[in-house]
Amino acid sequence: MTPVEFYFDFASPYGFIAAMQIDAIARPVTWRPFLLGAVYKTFGQSPLEHPLKKNYVLEADAPRVARRIGLQLEVPAGFPEHALAPSRAFYWIEEQDPANAVAFAKLAYRKYWLEGCATSDAAVAADAAVAVGFDRAAVLAGMQDARIKERLVEENAAAIRKGVFGSPFFLVDGEPFWGSDRMQHLPQP
Amino acid sequence: MTPVEFYFDFASPYGFIAAMQIDAIARPVTWRPFLLGAVYKTFGQSPLEHPLKKNYVLEADAPRVARRIGLQLEVPAGFPEHALAPSRAFYWIEEQDPANAVAFAKLAYRKYWLEGCATSDAAVAADAAVAVGFDRAAVLAGMQDARIKERLVEENAAAIRKGVFGSPFFLVDGEPFWGSDRMQHLPQP
Repeated sequence: MTPVEFYFDFASPYGFIAAMQIDAIARPVTWRPFLLGAVYKTFGQSPLEHPLKKNYVLEADAPRVARRIGLQLEVPAGFPEHALAPSRAFYWIEEQDPANAVAFAKLAYRKYWLEGCATSDAAVAADAAVAVGFDRAAVLAGMQDARIKERLVEENAAAIRKGVFGSPFFLVDGEPFWGSDRMQHLPQP
Repeated sequence: MTPVEFYFDFASPYGFIAAMQIDAIARPVTWRPFLLGAVYKTFGQSPLEHPLKKNYVLEADAPRVARRIGLQLEVPAGFPEHALAPSRAFYWIEEQDPANAVAFAKLAYRKYWLEGCATSDAAVAADAAVAVGFDRAAVLAGMQDARIKERLVEENAAAIRKGVFGSPFFLVDGEPFWGSDRMQHLPQP
């Protein structure tokens, strides 16, 4: 069965909402953290630069959507900041243990969007990695490994090649779906 | 019961999708056509200027959402063009017969998004007005009436004051909802 490619930025509230619900999808899922800022940069734009849209998302819509699935949203400290640390940690963990990478991603997301931890803080990403069984010093070193840094650069480039322009973004056999509210539109297997 | 303020641009595919479904809402609805371009201009941006997003909306998502409610989308000729003519015609008709203004809006929307007629073409808006019982010469004159032109300018300004930044946009007791997929989130009366 064709897996769903699930692209998400850890700094994205709707990416968080999708991550909390995606286990309900009747397909295998390939988790792919990326940096939405890197994608936007190629188009000379930035996400949520429209002030009304930013306020609407953070103060009205994302908390409302989260409440509908029983979650109380907390905006990460310093939002919007990059999510380099958890994205790199994800790919470092995935090399060793793919299933644990998904557990890490869910836990990191909960730290950012339920506890309000800063997405740019490497210590927070390390905490999440430790909680799923990894050594703190090892994961902190892994985030700084040149090969892992390059891996994230490649994943961002792959996202751009595939037409990903938002978070969350889903691809099934190349068909694009943007937004947590489009998970219900994914083709049934 | 508090009515839903329903803001929409005739050139917006999701505004069309909302207009085709809004009768299912258990509240009175105040229809408010506006020009999304006028709103964006105040922020120095334009809707769908991101090429990937525009392609996604027109070629993937909006047709898919329309199919889910049994409609075959056709993109208006010359899209994106302004929708001055139907917006002005709406307010001209509404002054005389509010219920007929809604019938006009639905019919105009079908001409744009099911038949692919140009939103900027005054003759198309006049056709829709004639079909709901108005005199062609009268509605064409009404669209050019300085008072009606000013009315649309005022409605655009009111939309901006209320924080409307997209189409469709719904307000219930001041609470904002953006997107046809948020109609299901409107508070139940």
